[in-house]
Amino acid sequence: MRGEDARYMALALALGRRGQGRCWPNPAVGCVIVKGGRIVGRGWTAPGGRPHAEVRALKQAGEGARGATVYVSLEPCAHHGKTPPCADALIAAGVARVVAPIVDSDPRVAGQGFARLESAGIEVETGICAGEALRDLGGFLRRAETGLPHLTLKLAMSLDGRIATASGDSQWITGAEARRVVHAMRARHDAVMVGAGTARADDPMLTVRGLGITGQPVRVVVSRRLDLPLMSQLAQSAREVPLWLCHGPDPDAALAEAWDGVGATRIACDLTGRQLDMASVLRALGDKGITRVFCEGGGGLAASLLGAGLVDELVVFRAGIAIGAEGLPGIGALGLDRLAGAERFALAETRAVGGDTMSRWRRG
Amino acid sequence: MRGEDARYMALALALGRRGQGRCWPNPAVGCVIVKGGRIVGRGWTAPGGRPHAEVRALKQAGEGARGATVYVSLEPCAHHGKTPPCADALIAAGVARVVAPIVDSDPRVAGQGFARLESAGIEVETGICAGEALRDLGGFLRRAETGLPHLTLKLAMSLDGRIATASGDSQWITGAEARRVVHAMRARHDAVMVGAGTARADDPMLTVRGLGITGQPVRVVVSRRLDLPLMSQLAQSAREVPLWLCHGPDPDAALAEAWDGVGATRIACDLTGRQLDMASVLRALGDKGITRVFCEGGGGLAASLLGAGLVDELVVFRAGIAIGAEGLPGIGALGLDRLAGAERFALAETRAVGGDTMSRWRRG
Repeated sequence: MRGEDARYMALALALGRRGQGRCWPNPAVGCVIVKGGRIVGRGWTAPGGRPHAEVRALKQAGEGARGATVYVSLEPCAHHGKTPPCADALIAAGVARVVAPIVDSDPRVAGQGFARLESAGIEVETGICAGEALRDLGGFLRRAETGLPHLTLKLAMSLDGRIATASGDSQWITGAEARRVVHAMRARHDAVMVGAGTARADDPMLTVRGLGITGQPVRVVVSRRLDLPLMSQLAQSAREVPLWLCHGPDPDAALAEAWDGVGATRIACDLTGRQLDMASVLRALGDKGITRVFCEGGGGLAASLLGAGLVDELVVFRAGIAIGAEGLPGIGALGLDRLAGAERFALAETRAVGGDTMSRWRRG
Repeated sequence: MRGEDARYMALALALGRRGQGRCWPNPAVGCVIVKGGRIVGRGWTAPGGRPHAEVRALKQAGEGARGATVYVSLEPCAHHGKTPPCADALIAAGVARVVAPIVDSDPRVAGQGFARLESAGIEVETGICAGEALRDLGGFLRRAETGLPHLTLKLAMSLDGRIATASGDSQWITGAEARRVVHAMRARHDAVMVGAGTARADDPMLTVRGLGITGQPVRVVVSRRLDLPLMSQLAQSAREVPLWLCHGPDPDAALAEAWDGVGATRIACDLTGRQLDMASVLRALGDKGITRVFCEGGGGLAASLLGAGLVDELVVFRAGIAIGAEGLPGIGALGLDRLAGAERFALAETRAVGGDTMSRWRRG
């Protein structure tokens, strides 16, 4: 029974991941309804965050939900938001058992979903696949608990940790397959973030391309002075795909007006000394509902985030090329003196992606 | 039959690798003798280079060699060196068939071993597992053809390609399991090489430790001026484990005398401009019989070797730690302007080693 529970839960988690990047500020939840050994309903949080996974799965199951077991990757909600509580919908449908790995740390839920189910006589089981659920829903939970989103830092570097030659040549270090994987990763995050230097040097679009996906992550550029080129792909596409600019407290008024004029959203953040405070930047994104941020550099922004201890996950692509010490570093100055003072990340995965390597590391 | 041949050849190659690092200037060859579906003899080049693999396997097979098939990872020798030719020994033993992947490019053999066998009526088959044999015996073949040994460059770096903090702290970036793998790799090479900066900063022994192995690779330090500390582990152990110092044409006479006095071997090499010419250094090692060199940095030496196009294989260990742009780079300046001008290495393997990653790359 336990092995069967884990298999259905793994399926619910996989369904839930389909919603990542598309349902913020809601959690990307998956749900599977099983009766008599048959799957009678499947669902995941819809784009935009509604309907919830349970409601979609219950609709598919219809009368089949009566007496069934429901596998859902997060505690069902217990509060009236824009939709009635999922716990009530499960009770009304007459399900017999609910299996969910983890409690929802949203203070409006926080165990009340489970309590409501149990008081209606439904058997509740928790803990199965909890580690995977905590990872998949980490952005939602982190924001609920701290106000900050989950941050993935992506680096695509040479063997020696460089992202461009001294003259600025950076296209391409990694190959087409790695870049395709990066686009798929962008699609699974609520926001894609770069620093001002990268925005100036690369003139990027930061959109998801080539994957047949509708809906785009929010594009975030961190620029204290807001001195970004208006003749850029980002500026020209700001009405089609959201572009948010995180800047310091006192931007140049003409620049601010110009960026407002092209349709960008400006977000004033705090400084630490003369630099933007990265915790303030992330909190501002969390305030606007962002739960998962995918940062693609450059070296200065990567160093600021690492130095502030704000990186939850690192994804490192590496090509079989050496650029040498004059090249642009993928991670800027950290002011680190002793190795013992550095944060150690735990290896989660390493594999080949085309002719490059990809490794993923998590906060230790 | 072909599948069976490949299986026995894979075994011969695996036996051959047992001799790597221990039989230079001879090739590390493996041999399996099979009769009636039974292995009747196995051998590999003995430490020091003699007896050869075929002779050891024939001795084990005894009368069983008559009519047998011999799998040997390199063309049997045809010349009288310090031992009589292996081709003659195979003929005398009455074997029926010899399977060998590749021709020996040593001009004293170069097809004559195969010709001698065939003229004695022995069936000869070549080409099976040739790619693997070329890799395993690449150092011997490269030296026979060009005078230079095979060079493996090992780098143990942080995520951002650094080998120490700005203050010089480098112990330890990678973990104990990675260091153990490095010792096993040292043992499979004829020589371990470092630059003068690494010798000064780390005071290394450069020996193989903790693996129960007798016999050590030659330790090579590249130092143009020979200005290395005499109060070092390398100097103090120079009478127990060979220490070769590759220096420029005019070293300080007192330094030269001191190093001669501790038992080191000095090798004068050519300059390119004001730097040691790395091809000259490798040629000097080849002249002394070295076929496989394992270079362990530092950044200056790594850059010199990469810049001169002398790196055949890269082994990169990577820890989940960021040191930042002030840290010491694992690869020094390369003077590279355009990415298109950089050498691309082909990924051969990537995997986890303890909490670190290890990737191997070969000349593309």
